Amino acid sequence: MTATLTERGTHRERRAHVAALHAELTRYGLVTWTSGNVSERVPGEDLFVIKGSGVSYDELSWEGVTVCDLDGGVVDGVRKPSSDTDAHAFVYRSMPEVGGQVHTHSPYATAWAARAEEIPCVLTAMADEFGGPIPVGPFALIGDDSIGQGIVATLRGSRSPAVLMRNHGVFTIGASARAAVKAAVMAEDVARTVHLSRQLGEPVPIAQEHVDALYARYQNVYGQ
Amino acid sequence: MTATLTERGTHRERRAHVAALHAELTRYGLVTWTSGNVSERVPGEDLFVIKGSGVSYDELSWEGVTVCDLDGGVVDGVRKPSSDTDAHAFVYRSMPEVGGQVHTHSPYATAWAARAEEIPCVLTAMADEFGGPIPVGPFALIGDDSIGQGIVATLRGSRSPAVLMRNHGVFTIGASARAAVKAAVMAEDVARTVHLSRQLGEPVPIAQEHVDALYARYQNVYGQ
Amino acid sequence: MTATLTERGTHRERRAHVAALHAELTRYGLVTWTSGNVSERVPGEDLFVIKGSGVSYDELSWEGVTVCDLDGGVVDGVRKPSSDTDAHAFVYRSMPEVGGQVHTHSPYATAWAARAEEIPCVLTAMADEFGGPIPVGPFALIGDDSIGQGIVATLRGSRSPAVLMRNHGVFTIGASARAAVKAAVMAEDVARTVHLSRQLGEPVPIAQEHVDALYARYQNVYGQ
Amino acid sequence: MTATLTERGTHRERRAHVAALHAELTRYGLVTWTSGNVSERVPGEDLFVIKGSGVSYDELSWEGVTVCDLDGGVVDGVRKPSSDTDAHAFVYRSMPEVGGQVHTHSPYATAWAARAEEIPCVLTAMADEFGGPIPVGPFALIGDDSIGQGIVATLRGSRSPAVLMRNHGVFTIGASARAAVKAAVMAEDVARTVHLSRQLGEPVPIAQEHVDALYARYQNVYGQ
Repeated sequence: MTATLTERGTHRERRAHVAALHAELTRYGLVTWTSGNVSERVPGEDLFVIKGSGVSYDELSWEGVTVCDLDGGVVDGVRKPSSDTDAHAFVYRSMPEVGGQVHTHSPYATAWAARAEEIPCVLTAMADEFGGPIPVGPFALIGDDSIGQGIVATLRGSRSPAVLMRNHGVFTIGASARAAVKAAVMAEDVARTVHLSRQLGEPVPIAQEHVDALYARYQNVYGQ
Repeated sequence: MTATLTERGTHRERRAHVAALHAELTRYGLVTWTSGNVSERVPGEDLFVIKGSGVSYDELSWEGVTVCDLDGGVVDGVRKPSSDTDAHAFVYRSMPEVGGQVHTHSPYATAWAARAEEIPCVLTAMADEFGGPIPVGPFALIGDDSIGQGIVATLRGSRSPAVLMRNHGVFTIGASARAAVKAAVMAEDVARTVHLSRQLGEPVPIAQEHVDALYARYQNVYGQ
Repeated sequence: MTATLTERGTHRERRAHVAALHAELTRYGLVTWTSGNVSERVPGEDLFVIKGSGVSYDELSWEGVTVCDLDGGVVDGVRKPSSDTDAHAFVYRSMPEVGGQVHTHSPYATAWAARAEEIPCVLTAMADEFGGPIPVGPFALIGDDSIGQGIVATLRGSRSPAVLMRNHGVFTIGASARAAVKAAVMAEDVARTVHLSRQLGEPVPIAQEHVDALYARYQNVYGQ
Repeated sequence: MTATLTERGTHRERRAHVAALHAELTRYGLVTWTSGNVSERVPGEDLFVIKGSGVSYDELSWEGVTVCDLDGGVVDGVRKPSSDTDAHAFVYRSMPEVGGQVHTHSPYATAWAARAEEIPCVLTAMADEFGGPIPVGPFALIGDDSIGQGIVATLRGSRSPAVLMRNHGVFTIGASARAAVKAAVMAEDVARTVHLSRQLGEPVPIAQEHVDALYARYQNVYGQ
C-alpha cells in the first residue's frame, strides 16, 4: 500500500492506451464530468494502471493514469488513483483471468441498478455478448473491499462480463481494457433498448437453448 | 463459397462509396461499437460488397469493405465479411430488384422488434416512406438462411422497405445502398416518434385511403 | 406559378442566411435526412426564399435555396423548392405580419401531434415564448392549400407561434426566419420537457394570470 | 442600480473564465438557444459577473459577460445582464459562502420541477454530491426578489447545492462558478437516471445512514 514515487513515467505506452480508451466512454455518453474509469493489468508484474481521481476527460493523457500494485497502492504517477481503485484491485487479486476493468454510471444501466433489477436477455446481441441476463450485485459502501467482493461474487456465477451494482452503476471485466470497454458500451446499449421495449409492453423472451446457441457461436467466433 | 484472394482491390469506387455511407449510421446513432452493416449489389456481376466483420467505424475505408458472390463467398478483400453476409446474400438472390441493404440494432426500432410489435402508421412521413406499418419478421438464428428467409418472406408482402426481425434488429432494402440507408435512418426516426407518442396515450390512426394517397404521391415524386 | 429561370443568383444574401439557419435544425436534432425547411419573406417584393427539395444538410449553400412568388411558383433557383412550399406560400399570403417560417418533424413535438394533443403550458419558459399551450391543427393532405389553411386557422386564434399539425409535425412562424427557427427550437424543447414530466405524473398547472404576466413581460422585453 | 459604463473591460480574466464555463452547459445538453447562465462573485469587491441577456453560445467571449453590483446594477459591460440577474444578486447578498451560481432549464431536472416533485436520493453518486434529495422551491414570478428568496429559503435547509424551482428550472450554487457548473451537470445527470429508473418501477431507497456516510466521505475527500 506504500507509494514509491520513484521511477515516474514507467509503463507509458499502457497508460497512454488506457487514457485513450476513455474516449469511448465519452463518445457513447457513459460518463459525466470526471466520473467513470478504465484500468488494465500489467501482465507479469502484479500491477495495474488506472485513471487518476478527478481528471478531466479533456486533459486525459498518460500522466492522468496511475500505476498501482494489486493492493491499490500507488507505484508510479502524479495523480491520486480513482476512488474506485480498491474495487479494481480486489477484482485483479481474485480473478486472474481479468485483464481489464471499467466502471461507469451510464444512465440506462444505472437505472436498472437503482431498481436492483437484472436486465433480461431479450435481444440476440445480448445473448451474443452477455450469454444471458446482466446480473445485479449487492449494495456496498465505498471505502473497503465491499464493492470488489460484490463484483466478484456476482460475476463468478455468470457468463456476463457486466454487473449492475445496486444503487450505484456498472462494473465490467474483460481479457483486456478494450474488451472491458466494449462490455461497458454494449451493457448501456442493451440496457437502453430493453428499457425502451419494456416501456410499452413486455419483450418476448428468447428460449434458453437459443441464448446458449447464440452465446456459444459468438464466443467461438469472437472470443478467446 | 470459395474465396479467391487474387485481384485484390477491385470495385474500389463502390467499396469506398459503401464505406462512406456507414457514416450516416453513426451520425444518426443507429449503431454501437462495430455493429451494423451496409451492402450494395454490383450490377451485372452476381456480386455484392459488404462491410467487413468487426471493422471499427473510425477506420472504415474501401479496404474494410469486402466483395462477395451471391452465395456469400469472398471474392476480394482483406477482411472477413460481416457475420450477416449470409442474410444479405439470400436477399440479393431472392429479390433481384434489391440493390442495397442495411442492418442495424438501432434502439427504438429494436425495442419494437423485441416486443414483436409492428410500428403502426400514424405519421404522414411514415405513410410517405413505408406506405403503412413497419412489419415484424420471425425469430431466426444466425448461421444459415433463416434470417434471409424471414426478411424476404416479410418484405415481399409489404410496401415497407424495412422489417423488424424479432428480438434482433432492423433490416432494410432499397434500389441502392443509399436508399437502404435512408430507409434505416427513417425507420429509427419513426420508431422513436411513435414510441414517444404511445408513451402518453394512443396516437390517432391515419385512414387507409390517406395512407394510400400519401404513399402514391411520394413514390411518384421521389420513387423510381 | 410559372418558373422564370432567368436572373439566376438573385437574393443571394438572404438565401445564404436562410441556408445557414438550417444548421440550427441539425444542431438541436429537429430534422432527419433531408426533412425540414426554413423560409423567409423578401420584404416589398411578393417573394420568399425556401429550402430546395431533398437537399442534403451537408451541402446546403445559397444555391440550395430557391426564390418563389407568393403562389409558390419558382422565380429563381436551380433546385425544385420544398414540397411544403404551397403551405408556406399560403401562410405568407394570409398573414402579412409573418416574415419567416419553419417546418420540422422534431420527435417530441411530433409525438404530441400524433396524439392530436396540445402541449399544456406548465413551464415558465413556455409562458414566455408561447403565451399558453401549443395548439393542434387539423389533419391535412399535402398537395393543395389544406396544410396552409390549417396552419393559419389555428395560429390566428393563438398567441403561439407554433402549431402541431395532426399526425404530421410542427410549423412555426415569426417576424423573421430566425424568429421562426427559435420558435421551432423552443417548441421541441418544451415538448420534450413536458413529455418527460407527464411520464411520471401530472405537471402542476400555471395559473392563467401568471401565464399572462410572463408572456406580457417577455414580449415587452424581447418582442417587437 | 445605476450603471456606470466607464472602465469597460475590467475583470476580463474572470469574465473569460465564466464565458468558457458555459461550454459545459452546451456539452451536456443543459441549455437551448440562449437560455441558461453562469455567474461568479468577485471576491472582496461586492461585485459579480454574469452572462449577458440573449447572448448566443457560439459568440460568448468575455465581452458577453457583464459585471454587476450586488443589487444587480451594471458596473461594466456592453451587454444587458441576464434577466435572471436579480435572482443571482439576491443569493450573493444572502449567502456569503456562495461564490458561483448556475441556472438552466435542463430537461430532466425541469421535468421534476414541473411536477413540483423532489428527486429522491437513490444513487450513491447523488448521496456523494447532493447529500440527499434535490429539493423543490416555490413558484415565483420573475421581476423582483421572489426567485432569489425561493432559492435561498430552500437551499438554506438542505445539503443540496441544487434547487428545482417549480414550473421553472434548476438553480445551483457553489464555492466557485466551476463548482456550481458541476452541480448543474450532476443535477441533470441524476435527474435523468432516477427518471429512467422510476419509469419501470420503484428504485430501492438508500438507508439514511448510508446517505450520511457517503456524503461525509465525499465532502472530506473532494469538499473544502
